[in-house]
Amino acid sequence: MKLGLIQMNVCENKTKNLKTAAESVKNLAKQGAEIVILPEMFCCPYENSAFVREAEAEGGTVTTALSQMARENRVILIGGSMPEEDHGKLYNTSFVYNVDGTRIARHRKAHLFDINVPNGQVFYESDTFTAGDEITIFKTNLGTFGLCICFDMRFPELARAMALRGAQVIFCPAAFNNTTGPAHWEVMHRARAIDNQLYVVSVAPAANPSASYHSYGHSIVVSPWGEVLAQAEREECSFCVEIDLAKNDEIRKSLPLLSGLKPNLYGIY
Amino acid sequence: MKLGLIQMNVCENKTKNLKTAAESVKNLAKQGAEIVILPEMFCCPYENSAFVREAEAEGGTVTTALSQMARENRVILIGGSMPEEDHGKLYNTSFVYNVDGTRIARHRKAHLFDINVPNGQVFYESDTFTAGDEITIFKTNLGTFGLCICFDMRFPELARAMALRGAQVIFCPAAFNNTTGPAHWEVMHRARAIDNQLYVVSVAPAANPSASYHSYGHSIVVSPWGEVLAQAEREECSFCVEIDLAKNDEIRKSLPLLSGLKPNLYGIY
Repeated sequence: MKLGLIQMNVCENKTKNLKTAAESVKNLAKQGAEIVILPEMFCCPYENSAFVREAEAEGGTVTTALSQMARENRVILIGGSMPEEDHGKLYNTSFVYNVDGTRIARHRKAHLFDINVPNGQVFYESDTFTAGDEITIFKTNLGTFGLCICFDMRFPELARAMALRGAQVIFCPAAFNNTTGPAHWEVMHRARAIDNQLYVVSVAPAANPSASYHSYGHSIVVSPWGEVLAQAEREECSFCVEIDLAKNDEIRKSLPLLSGLKPNLYGIY
Repeated sequence: MKLGLIQMNVCENKTKNLKTAAESVKNLAKQGAEIVILPEMFCCPYENSAFVREAEAEGGTVTTALSQMARENRVILIGGSMPEEDHGKLYNTSFVYNVDGTRIARHRKAHLFDINVPNGQVFYESDTFTAGDEITIFKTNLGTFGLCICFDMRFPELARAMALRGAQVIFCPAAFNNTTGPAHWEVMHRARAIDNQLYVVSVAPAANPSASYHSYGHSIVVSPWGEVLAQAEREECSFCVEIDLAKNDEIRKSLPLLSGLKPNLYGIY
């Protein structure tokens, strides 16, 4: 199975961002990508003011364009994320489209990114967003997949919940920064893959020096054994990566982690 | 706070292993170590036949010697692990002694190591051991600590459960091998530390080329930000590492992971 990752430059101009996305999806589809993944907030800068200004309901410009990209290129499209408006609330939302343009999944970021590292990154997503409250799994002809957004990946419980619900790959539009990126990005993705014995794929925007939030980039694909199959730098790029879902079961048989779980032991919360 | 890690050579001779342990504890205590950690199966080879042959009840040679080492050197001693016999069953057990020689904790490995990697490591601990069924936390004058053994660390649920019960450091006598060690040892320890924002300390036996099970060594101390503060190679060594428990709270404040948990969301098992 061939994945296409789009680590795109995101600018202030929504129309331009949608055009960049559409061109990249087309290009990767031509290279044989069957599932294409856009980054978190691919259509507007990662800033609370932009989230408010650019928020749209499902059915607006952005989701219409995403559906069209999927349909025209016959790909499953993980539509990064966008500020979604619904009944007066804003969410950081990822929509997924099937090859015919049908919307088949919607994940609203469940763990909002509120961080205040002394001499490092400061950001409060909860200033504008409401948290989602659902675990998102979707089935396709290619397999069963989990979907979460950036800070969601910080919580091993969520990855585990997706694995136990049958996810073979966890897709994650994301945007770490230059404080947490170098410290935690790769190790976190490798650990989620190793612990749950599945593929993990995260796609981030390219670094934009003129933006207020500096994305770490480093879009990544990790195998169920924890190998980094591909990882970008900070610059704009889009690329395909082949994966083989049969590896999950192979590794689960040789190293019984999921079957070794002892749910009665943990009594966590 | 100063920790002392003992990555010792383990041989067939229990008396000799106890002597090696006692000398190392004394040596590290002289260097100022306040908590000393021995490796998994420090008193006999890591083989099912040795587990059966060398198993002892609490109060036998091994635990008596451990209590004495703690008392004579005025250290808290995480007594690695040993094959423990109790009511006809065998456990892979870690006993902990306070500075006065009192036994203050006992952890029986809860996740047994059963692995069969094609062209890699094969081992079935469940051939001889019964699994423990408790989460182990203990309080001391120096802080509150969690205790688990090797394969237990594979399960993020257990580390989380210890963190939520107040563990400031997770101690883990362990013995990875040359298949899983290079692939997973460091990343797993870093992830547990990062996700739970606490120190993680694992101590393994040195590699013994004449043993049937080849320990990966690499005894490790990881900070709550995921930095590897110290990591051994495969050879015999013992060393001290300074840690500062105030770091946990500092990091938990700047990056709210534990307080960001959404227990109602996961509904995992």
